[in-house]
Amino acid sequence: MAAAESLRERVAALNADYARAIDDDRIEDWPEFFLDECLYKITTADNHRRGLEMGLVYADSKGMLKDRVAALREANVYERQRYRHIVGLPTILRWQGAEAEVESPFLVTRIMRDGTMDVFATGRYLDRVVSAGADGALRYRERIVVCDSSRFDTLLALPL
Amino acid sequence: MAAAESLRERVAALNADYARAIDDDRIEDWPEFFLDECLYKITTADNHRRGLEMGLVYADSKGMLKDRVAALREANVYERQRYRHIVGLPTILRWQGAEAEVESPFLVTRIMRDGTMDVFATGRYLDRVVSAGADGALRYRERIVVCDSSRFDTLLALPL
Amino acid sequence: MAAAESLRERVAALNADYARAIDDDRIEDWPEFFLDECLYKITTADNHRRGLEMGLVYADSKGMLKDRVAALREANVYERQRYRHIVGLPTILRWQGAEAEVESPFLVTRIMRDGTMDVFATGRYLDRVVSAGADGALRYRERIVVCDSSRFDTLLALPL
Repeated sequence: MAAAESLRERVAALNADYARAIDDDRIEDWPEFFLDECLYKITTADNHRRGLEMGLVYADSKGMLKDRVAALREANVYERQRYRHIVGLPTILRWQGAEAEVESPFLVTRIMRDGTMDVFATGRYLDRVVSAGADGALRYRERIVVCDSSRFDTLLALPL
Repeated sequence: MAAAESLRERVAALNADYARAIDDDRIEDWPEFFLDECLYKITTADNHRRGLEMGLVYADSKGMLKDRVAALREANVYERQRYRHIVGLPTILRWQGAEAEVESPFLVTRIMRDGTMDVFATGRYLDRVVSAGADGALRYRERIVVCDSSRFDTLLALPL
Repeated sequence: MAAAESLRERVAALNADYARAIDDDRIEDWPEFFLDECLYKITTADNHRRGLEMGLVYADSKGMLKDRVAALREANVYERQRYRHIVGLPTILRWQGAEAEVESPFLVTRIMRDGTMDVFATGRYLDRVVSAGADGALRYRERIVVCDSSRFDTLLALPL
């Protein structure tokens, strides 16, 4: 990896690409931002503080992420709603060898089919990011989505 | 233009300056972010997907942008409302010679005269940016504002 | 201080750290982002335009900021609500010697204990930032929080 400033730039670009894939209805690209062995979890700030492991959404392999994509396509979730992610500047918490721990705040607006909009979720991404593969591109080894509010429906929701 | 990283920085600064001009009630500065021959369009994600050319707002010269500024001043739009833009990190889609194609997500909050606030619009800017003029400053050759929602009033709205 | 690009990066990181301290319930860290002699003020765009000095919240020393932290802890404000700051890219307005004048747009979502969320405040930070202390870390000499709306309750609010 390059110098610290540059790592922040690269993580910010990774976060932006990730958000664009979801917001642009290219959800099939979403699992590709993760390693084969990975952790993706949506949890609440309350549960995260209490150390509860289980999330509202939980996947520990790229295969599970692909299964979720298939389920969301099956349910036509994009016909119902869209998201718009706004992601703040990442903070590099730790950086050892090929892996970095990063935190980034986010806000997601949901746009329903009928045009109504609301702030769907806010929170922070707690990520473990590694430089992987032949191209050395950044991937998430772990992305824990800690939502500020404990009141929202993720059953048929797009990924955060 | 400078190196790729630096281009992203410069585009982000251009986007920030653009947003500040609108949000700070300096709308007369707004056309100056464009080339004389330019395209500025506000459209919806639905219409953009369908390839519909016509926008909710459409201007193909700096002169038309100035006319719109005059109309908005005539209608005292700033007395009624303010905007606050939050613009995410730009993604450089293509970069050839002096022109770059860039995409940036945005969220605009509207603040009415009586103090009420709402999320007015979210979406993405699809821009063609060039380094122009004696000072080499970046300008928009094209800014297509693709709004996520199809339900909003732009008749007397400030520029997005 | 380093080069101009780098200053923007450093200010953006300072803003991100500041926001994280508040949003993560580490409000005791909040005064440490300021010099001992400082100015922290929350005001409205209307009052700021009129040149009114008094703010909704006003502190001109780190001691006053610590007093406010004590009062907020006393009132258990974090049990009632959380904030999530999304801060846009800073614009360097002036930069002379060790001090820079900087402006950054912000949006703060409030998350109530029962899970309801709303856009609590939008506006811009007008900051004077200096490189201070043995470590040369950036600190605010002045942070004027100019809120777009004039309608909100700051009596027992967390810092913006």
